[in-house]
Amino acid sequence: SLKEALAKENEVDIADFMENLPQDKATVVFRTLPKELAAEVFSNLPPETQQIIIRSITDEELGAIVEDLFVDDAVDMLEELPANVVKRVLKNAQPETRNLINQFLNYPENSVGSIMTAEFIDLKKTMTVSDAINRIRRIGEDRESIYTCYVTDSRRCLEGVVTVKELLLSPDETVIGDLMERDVITARTTEDQEEAVQRMMRYDFISMPVVDHENRLVGIVTVDDVMDVMEEEATEDFEKMAAMAPSERPYLKTNVFELAKNRIVWLLVLMVSGMITGGILGKYEASFAALPLLVTFIPMLTDTGGNAGSQSSTLVIRGMAVGEIRPADFLKVLWKELRVSFIVGVALSVVNFIRLVIMYPGNELIALTVAFALLATVVVAKTIGGILPIIAKSVKADPAIMAAPLITTIVDACSLVIYFNVAERLLKL
Amino acid sequence: SLKEALAKENEVDIADFMENLPQDKATVVFRTLPKELAAEVFSNLPPETQQIIIRSITDEELGAIVEDLFVDDAVDMLEELPANVVKRVLKNAQPETRNLINQFLNYPENSVGSIMTAEFIDLKKTMTVSDAINRIRRIGEDRESIYTCYVTDSRRCLEGVVTVKELLLSPDETVIGDLMERDVITARTTEDQEEAVQRMMRYDFISMPVVDHENRLVGIVTVDDVMDVMEEEATEDFEKMAAMAPSERPYLKTNVFELAKNRIVWLLVLMVSGMITGGILGKYEASFAALPLLVTFIPMLTDTGGNAGSQSSTLVIRGMAVGEIRPADFLKVLWKELRVSFIVGVALSVVNFIRLVIMYPGNELIALTVAFALLATVVVAKTIGGILPIIAKSVKADPAIMAAPLITTIVDACSLVIYFNVAERLLKL
Ligand SMILES: [Mg+2]
Ligand SMILES: [Mg+2]
Ligand SMILES: [Mg+2]
Ligand SMILES: [Mg+2]
Ligand SMILES: [Mg+2]
Ligand SMILES: [Mg+2]
Ligand SMILES: [Mg+2]
Ligand SMILES: [Mg+2]
Ligand SMILES: [Mg+2]
Ligand SMILES: [Mg+2]
Ligand SMILES: [Mg+2]
Ligand SMILES: [Mg+2]
Ligand SMILES: [Mg+2]
Repeated sequence: SLKEALAKENEVDIADFMENLPQDKATVVFRTLPKELAAEVFSNLPPETQQIIIRSITDEELGAIVEDLFVDDAVDMLEELPANVVKRVLKNAQPETRNLINQFLNYPENSVGSIMTAEFIDLKKTMTVSDAINRIRRIGEDRESIYTCYVTDSRRCLEGVVTVKELLLSPDETVIGDLMERDVITARTTEDQEEAVQRMMRYDFISMPVVDHENRLVGIVTVDDVMDVMEEEATEDFEKMAAMAPSERPYLKTNVFELAKNRIVWLLVLMVSGMITGGILGKYEASFAALPLLVTFIPMLTDTGGNAGSQSSTLVIRGMAVGEIRPADFLKVLWKELRVSFIVGVALSVVNFIRLVIMYPGNELIALTVAFALLATVVVAKTIGGILPIIAKSVKADPAIMAAPLITTIVDACSLVIYFNVAERLLKL
Repeated sequence: SLKEALAKENEVDIADFMENLPQDKATVVFRTLPKELAAEVFSNLPPETQQIIIRSITDEELGAIVEDLFVDDAVDMLEELPANVVKRVLKNAQPETRNLINQFLNYPENSVGSIMTAEFIDLKKTMTVSDAINRIRRIGEDRESIYTCYVTDSRRCLEGVVTVKELLLSPDETVIGDLMERDVITARTTEDQEEAVQRMMRYDFISMPVVDHENRLVGIVTVDDVMDVMEEEATEDFEKMAAMAPSERPYLKTNVFELAKNRIVWLLVLMVSGMITGGILGKYEASFAALPLLVTFIPMLTDTGGNAGSQSSTLVIRGMAVGEIRPADFLKVLWKELRVSFIVGVALSVVNFIRLVIMYPGNELIALTVAFALLATVVVAKTIGGILPIIAKSVKADPAIMAAPLITTIVDACSLVIYFNVAERLLKL
């Protein structure tokens, strides 16, 4: 039967299957699920399907599901639901759950608080290993992560941490206070989620305790949610670096008007700066009217400048995102980019010079103009590309906006000014 | 004392501390570490420092460390060491360890085999829960991940999986065969590591079993290494999308010649196509000699085209990297981009037309030319940007190369051809 077939499947696969069913069918499938599986499947459904299910079940069933959800998943769901549905969900939760959800809903977006959950194992340092294992057996069923246990005092302050591995490998009578690690690496509720991601990766944790400003343990972040954050943050950077407003919806599920809206603002901004570049170019109309050949080298020059600058800005933006480069490294980056850009610029200029001398014999001065403008462009582009993201970060802007599109536009203007000034001098235009 | 201070620190922090010490000091610090901590610290050191330590210790000490390393970390280290050091390391390993390392060294780069390790807990389905827990207590000490246990038959074929949470929450006499999940989600040694990453994320695993082509369990991948792969793969995509050869070394630790080398090849390639664009532009010399004003709109036009195209290609490349968009979605993407580009193109053209009519009164035909060329450019750019990454993927090339730099160059040429053809017709040049 369907019931038996479904019960064998993984909850993620069932949720996937339900997501693609028509509304009434999805509801029917959901009703055939055994109770514990139902809550797990429910937390894996996208908000639209969750809403359909909520509308089709009784208050009592809804209350049971809310109690079974982990707080982080409940909060993520409520953030997406319309106000009247949120009201109904909260009304049917137990008072304690409702308070917890309301507390968690208050943590700002992208904070550690917004990705943490509340279902952890807490121990006391006076317990023995066998007390601890008994406690895990008693309360572990509805804890999200049981493998790292947190030792707290009577005021819920975090005193230590002990893993289930350590518990299992220690004699039953060992006292937790003697076994636990006291220097606990934690995150704060108000910290940026990206910092928690970096700390989890650095120490290879599968969960990390989250404390408030008084060192009281309020929740944990688990590695599965941290991986989701990593993916989202990288996607956000890709989008920003390609001059788009970041979107949390997957591409294929976003409608065309929203896609257009996300793209149009930055294109307009960049179009305006493209116009400024055009204005700069206009100042040299006399030069290229006198020597139209000069115009044909503009795309090569501006494209190379843009590409060279984007290479540097990409490396620096990514280096800052993964925590390798900090604002204090400003001078190191500047010095590195100056040297790299000189090597790269000289190589490109020499290749270009040779090509132009062969293709336009007798026009060595033009070749020299292009070669010199190219070298200067690459050096300026890479220097700007390398330091602008760091400057953005130090003024608390997102470095990711200092990427290819903006760099290209800035570098375009610079390279044209360099090019025509060199041309006017060398070619006496 | 230093010894006591260090023993309290986390192994990752000690490794970090040692990395920044002069060679002789690092060796001294390493010698003060208690034996079990030493191996953990060692596996967190960068290859250069590992080599310094290896040179400073006896064969016997080296043998002990190799036995204490997890196979994946041993293999990662050996891949970076010079041949003579590798030889000395392998000579001092136990025959069994040496065979395992040699087997693991053979898995190709970026395969699941290259990130897996061999230290897992295997159970038999005839065991009871208390047998299983006793086995974990006996062998758990040197297993990388004990929380998911794998049930194998006499030929090492994978039959099921059971978590420590399930073991702890079940009565002691339960038989593993009745408790285990039989539909095990696995990875294959030869699969691409990115697919394993996506599967781990989808199912929220902290470790995943890896089987060979005969379904024999050969290793596990653990979530900490999967997170490292995620970060590396995203960085690789950022680098490729900015026209650089990907590098595994962090920016600040890469020397300028290597940085220059990674950047120069693509810049040369793109410079050549910039020249082709210049050649195309040269064909219209008569047009812009007759009406130099036309030249001043070129940067705005080509930059907008490049930006519009990169937006689309970035979304599609990223969508494919996270597994959302597949080559089968080709037509969906094409249709979406056509509509989005039309909306975006019309909006930008109207803004531009109004601006030009105001700024250059009496030149409505030029304004119309620019507006129409802009619309056509945006539509072409977004269509090309959206479908080229999918085409790349279907011919087994990396979609990430179809990003801003290449798209910009292709779109530059297209937009110039469109622009001057429209101009020649509308303005009768
Ligand atoms: Mg949340
Ligand atoms: Mg790590
Ligand atoms: Mg969670
Ligand atoms: Mg989850
Ligand atoms: Mg962020
Ligand atoms: Mg960010
Ligand atoms: Mg490896
Ligand atoms: Mg997940
Ligand atoms: Mg590992
Ligand atoms: Mg590791
Ligand atoms: Mg790859
Ligand atoms: Mg890739
Ligand atoms: Mg350009």
